[in-house]
Amino acid sequence: MFEQLGLIGCGLMGGSFALALRRAGLVRQIVGYSHSPASTERARQLGVIDVAAHSAQEAAHGADLVLVAVPVAASLSTFQAIRPALGAGALVMDVGSTKCDVIEAARHGLAERLGNFVPAHPIAGKECAGVDHADPHLYTGRQVILTPLPETRLAQTQRANAVWSALGAHVRSMTPESHDSALAAVSHLPHLLAFAFTNGLTAQANSAHFFELAGPGFRDFSRIAAAEPTLWRDVLLANRTQVQLQLDAFRGALADLEALMQAGDATGLGQAIAAASATRSQWTMGTGPVVDATSASTPA
Amino acid sequence: MFEQLGLIGCGLMGGSFALALRRAGLVRQIVGYSHSPASTERARQLGVIDVAAHSAQEAAHGADLVLVAVPVAASLSTFQAIRPALGAGALVMDVGSTKCDVIEAARHGLAERLGNFVPAHPIAGKECAGVDHADPHLYTGRQVILTPLPETRLAQTQRANAVWSALGAHVRSMTPESHDSALAAVSHLPHLLAFAFTNGLTAQANSAHFFELAGPGFRDFSRIAAAEPTLWRDVLLANRTQVQLQLDAFRGALADLEALMQAGDATGLGQAIAAASATRSQWTMGTGPVVDATSASTPA
Repeated sequence: MFEQLGLIGCGLMGGSFALALRRAGLVRQIVGYSHSPASTERARQLGVIDVAAHSAQEAAHGADLVLVAVPVAASLSTFQAIRPALGAGALVMDVGSTKCDVIEAARHGLAERLGNFVPAHPIAGKECAGVDHADPHLYTGRQVILTPLPETRLAQTQRANAVWSALGAHVRSMTPESHDSALAAVSHLPHLLAFAFTNGLTAQANSAHFFELAGPGFRDFSRIAAAEPTLWRDVLLANRTQVQLQLDAFRGALADLEALMQAGDATGLGQAIAAASATRSQWTMGTGPVVDATSASTPA
Repeated sequence: MFEQLGLIGCGLMGGSFALALRRAGLVRQIVGYSHSPASTERARQLGVIDVAAHSAQEAAHGADLVLVAVPVAASLSTFQAIRPALGAGALVMDVGSTKCDVIEAARHGLAERLGNFVPAHPIAGKECAGVDHADPHLYTGRQVILTPLPETRLAQTQRANAVWSALGAHVRSMTPESHDSALAAVSHLPHLLAFAFTNGLTAQANSAHFFELAGPGFRDFSRIAAAEPTLWRDVLLANRTQVQLQLDAFRGALADLEALMQAGDATGLGQAIAAASATRSQWTMGTGPVVDATSASTPA
């Protein structure tokens, strides 16, 4: 049980965490802050937070758990803002889709509190942003990746593990580099492709006609193109090196298919498609065993 | 009410049509044939067809409605096979994802029966193929595109319109060229990209790790990569000219995003992503008004 959650960023991810934590009976009070006063007030109206703070520092003050749920580019300024207010034992986590850049920001921004920071990325989301879409079940059954630093206190990693587990998530630990390369492959690149695909359609004179005829395949393929622009701009910029590697791998595979198609090579094209189809048919969404070195325990 | 449906190709699309037609009480008997004897027998066991024919010609014999639901590359041989068995008044339709090539096949294969052929493309499907996944509701609420030829008898287009409408589909008519360019944009290109994306991942040494961390975004974006290989090989080859145009448009949009990302241009990248996000957020799956020149009537 936590006495107080300091929630910095009352959007979809942060709001869902707050709702889930309260639903699990793991928090007594939630103090929230969003950059936009309207968002903070909306979160209070919806009962996602109990108290609307006027600054990130105020939200963190007195909290034994602080969740930083802001676009990753705002990590440094947020860490700097909350550092003076952090208690010596407060667990600090983020929910960012990239980890190396957030850790770099934490090294600069959290200073003597760095050992209390457990970088976290819940692999969950929706294409609709904002606290109005916050959902206490957003993390249920999803994977949460922890990428603790060498400096991270083991007890804090264990608490982080325990709290996400208590929310029904499956917790894994890995290095931030391993996280960022994998997420570039299976999340950041698909977003980039979906954005490009949508813009490529819109640029054409017949796009209205095209969109009218789009069916269920288009619906699912392009769903992530509706994602929150600022968040994804920041993710792509923060992880651009890994995204570029994945983009190059994709381009190679696309060129292979294109050459087979243009050559009319039915056998080769059929084999290449069959390989993709078999791979995707066999895939099931992972629930991730607990593979980290720490053991789960109930939250302190 | 039709006396007899001759179903050539008892797979997902054909089987679903048979189930829907029977459910609507619009057919007395269904005679089916698949290239694979095991598939034909399975369709009979499941009650999707009443009688298992030993050839396409046998399935078409005596039918007043013939549905050709085969991979588009098999269209010509199928039309040639059934032509001698076709009655003078039998309505013939296909369900192919491309129309220009199927029409070309019909011109050669159906000869004097060409006027009874109404090219049709129901914009519906699943990533799992085969009669075991046939679903009487597959076409409910979906769009069905008819692309009648100048030679097509108006009465047959009206019957085609009526039967699909009776199954709960929304029928539209357009030229085959207009259909093929639009479907290249919103269906064929996304499939090509999803195949390439999946193969680009698989080619990497860490792909098993990547796939483990894939979440809901990956699940939806890549769903169509699991599609039936032969069917999609044929579609991409048949419509390769239009697919190439769409691929070029996509590459241009992707290069724009890549340049902004690599330049670290947060403003420009944010705007480009915001454009995609706004477009996709506003899109809803079309149900397609009846815009063709024929009027709907109950099936003859």
